[in-house]
Amino acid sequence: MMERPAKDCRIVLVRPRNPLNIGAAARAMANFGFTDLAVVEPYEEAWREARSAVGAEDVLMRARKYDVLADALADRDFVAGTTSGSRRPEMRGQLLLLAELPPRLVRRKTAILFGSEKHGLTNEHLGHCHAGVRIPTAGNCPSMNLGQSVAVCCYEIARAEVKAPRRKGAKPARMSDIEGLKDEWLQVLCVAQYCPTPPRTGDHTRLRQMLLRINPSARDVAILRGMLNNIAWKLGARK
Amino acid sequence: MMERPAKDCRIVLVRPRNPLNIGAAARAMANFGFTDLAVVEPYEEAWREARSAVGAEDVLMRARKYDVLADALADRDFVAGTTSGSRRPEMRGQLLLLAELPPRLVRRKTAILFGSEKHGLTNEHLGHCHAGVRIPTAGNCPSMNLGQSVAVCCYEIARAEVKAPRRKGAKPARMSDIEGLKDEWLQVLCVAQYCPTPPRTGDHTRLRQMLLRINPSARDVAILRGMLNNIAWKLGARK
Repeated sequence: MMERPAKDCRIVLVRPRNPLNIGAAARAMANFGFTDLAVVEPYEEAWREARSAVGAEDVLMRARKYDVLADALADRDFVAGTTSGSRRPEMRGQLLLLAELPPRLVRRKTAILFGSEKHGLTNEHLGHCHAGVRIPTAGNCPSMNLGQSVAVCCYEIARAEVKAPRRKGAKPARMSDIEGLKDEWLQVLCVAQYCPTPPRTGDHTRLRQMLLRINPSARDVAILRGMLNNIAWKLGARK
Repeated sequence: MMERPAKDCRIVLVRPRNPLNIGAAARAMANFGFTDLAVVEPYEEAWREARSAVGAEDVLMRARKYDVLADALADRDFVAGTTSGSRRPEMRGQLLLLAELPPRLVRRKTAILFGSEKHGLTNEHLGHCHAGVRIPTAGNCPSMNLGQSVAVCCYEIARAEVKAPRRKGAKPARMSDIEGLKDEWLQVLCVAQYCPTPPRTGDHTRLRQMLLRINPSARDVAILRGMLNNIAWKLGARK
């Protein structure tokens, strides 16, 4: 059975700075049949300007704005972050070439992250991703314009008619499950004085990445949270 | 043997109006290893602004400007014109999907044409093309931003590592051969009162398209020109 992986794929722009780029990203999405745009921590003025532009796409008018990346990803079960090049230190997961991405998106609720024009995605952002994605650009000019990289990714995904893999038995965990598990786990680790209270951003990132690597099912997450609950109670961290 | 069809592919922007788009096209080319940019009848101000922009790409600084499309194509032997949709009346040649294009570019001197932001390529422009190329956009939003469509085409071409077809014996005709043949042919047709003197643009377009369909080799063109020469002499069109 052939499936279009574009169907349930959210495009997430993190900290975009230029209204023209936000508009261009929305246009490219509309060109290739994508409808779900989320914008995280946009520069306020850019966000306002983009949406008030003449001829702004429906996609843009329906886009949702988030202050926190995790909220934009809560209902997703596979997240990929675009990166122009060399493997980043925190990105210990997989690094895929763009052409390898579409089969990973079939029959899942997915998101693809694009960083700001200036800095791309930070290590903290990449820490929310199951995989990094690289558009195979030339070594002497690796960094793409934001609107163009959204266009190329949407094209590649829409282009692929992918043979759906056989459905595995286990229901994958959503990002909100992973976040919840990570937070409870960190609470316990704080009480156990494994890390400071409150935990540092790096503690969040490392634990999240480990969980994404393990790739627990929704049921695994429930089991682990049950265990943690008991440990927390025993440690006196809960009443 | 594997070959990269990007190697000898010229990107041709016809009548671009927006300096940002010219810059974006050049950026996308650099991202995917393309170096040969030609710009035909640009809006003068847009052309000046694009080249004086901070951070303008090398590709743009080395780009050549032409007043006439045929001059930008003279040394090419395969030309494809991008079109957003339905087959245009004059485009009686092939209409390819973008993914079908790369194998056609291998081991040839090729050009890909992009029309103005507002109107795309005219029928006259498409009349210079061996084939039309369609980026498979959504029916309800078919028309792409210029810089983004250049990015997507360059990505698709760079992405393809194509198995080179066995070399055919005949050397393909260049566009300048085709133009020369067409002009001599029309001269004869004028004398024969088949068409008005001078011929209309449509006469040029129809004859050029017929020749591109026939796809004569360089040797075919030489033979045909020899025949025409004699006919012209016999008609008293030459001294």
